[in-house]
Amino acid sequence: MPEPIDFYFDFSSPYSYLLSEKIDALAARFGRSVRWRPILLGAVFKASGSAPLTLQFAPKASYSVLDFQRSARFMGLPYRHPDVFPIASQYAARACYWLEETQPAQARPFAQAVFRALFVDNTDISSLDSVLEIAARCGVDLDSLAAAVQGPALKARLKTEVEAAIAHGVFGAPYIVIDGEPFFGADRLPQIERWLENGSF
Amino acid sequence: MPEPIDFYFDFSSPYSYLLSEKIDALAARFGRSVRWRPILLGAVFKASGSAPLTLQFAPKASYSVLDFQRSARFMGLPYRHPDVFPIASQYAARACYWLEETQPAQARPFAQAVFRALFVDNTDISSLDSVLEIAARCGVDLDSLAAAVQGPALKARLKTEVEAAIAHGVFGAPYIVIDGEPFFGADRLPQIERWLENGSF
Repeated sequence: MPEPIDFYFDFSSPYSYLLSEKIDALAARFGRSVRWRPILLGAVFKASGSAPLTLQFAPKASYSVLDFQRSARFMGLPYRHPDVFPIASQYAARACYWLEETQPAQARPFAQAVFRALFVDNTDISSLDSVLEIAARCGVDLDSLAAAVQGPALKARLKTEVEAAIAHGVFGAPYIVIDGEPFFGADRLPQIERWLENGSF
Repeated sequence: MPEPIDFYFDFSSPYSYLLSEKIDALAARFGRSVRWRPILLGAVFKASGSAPLTLQFAPKASYSVLDFQRSARFMGLPYRHPDVFPIASQYAARACYWLEETQPAQARPFAQAVFRALFVDNTDISSLDSVLEIAARCGVDLDSLAAAVQGPALKARLKTEVEAAIAHGVFGAPYIVIDGEPFFGADRLPQIERWLENGSF
């Protein structure tokens, strides 16, 4: 069995949302699985000296919002730029790791529901309540989840994952690694497809 | 006749080189011409608070060099990352505007020769001598060119072009504008193609 493809993402990243809607089906066509690894871009940008696109130079910021929407149309996906943006995603990220540890079958549907809540339904996903509400729709036991995402173990787990990602060279999201080869950005999807087809190019 | 497509680029930008090899033929398929507009990313980055990719956070810098090379292979183009990088491109940019003013038929072949000198043949294009040598191969009168690119008129012309680009919202290169719609990056080529096909999407 080949190693899973690593998919580093932040729930608050528009291009991560776009890639999240495509990567599993693409990988499956080549008999590959995908390891979803939520990270926090805030910590990554602190390490790299960068910032969210929409907080950068004004022309770049406004182009970015146009490009999120146009790229979504290009990829055949719905997109509604959130009113709250950028947005904190640590509860969602911790919940994702907790599900992976305790109810792995629920982790992927939950992650997809979080992305769609933010980028299709304009939900403020930063609050614990929103995250619990999304989890409830995925059939998750809310009392255990609420305790876990506020506890020290999950905080530490997410911190470790983010630090490991940065140490691995992740400088933004989405960031895909296939057998050691890194691909940054949803717009690298055609290159990812060719890499999976040919092993390299 | 529709307006020409605007192609803002810096001769020292790898992704500008990649797009420069494709944009004319693509535009021609849709009956469109392309206005090549050399700018200086140094001035753009000063306005935007950015920096060349290879001088950014180390993991991003090394990924960028990998991506220049891989994107070139993906697009079927030769690429040899230059030993001198980033590199000053003001003589080449001024020469390009001078040719456009005085011998327009030579401007495009000269610009393509500059890009290939830098990104295929590893030529240091920053010196006046290199630019003259490339121009000579394109059948340009060197005495007039040498005087022009060192004179105040061309310096002022390039400065005006760069300031106009920044005022227009250009925050990096390559930057394409089709009937008011902006596209940033060589990786937007498939979106540019669909835009030309459909008027919008």
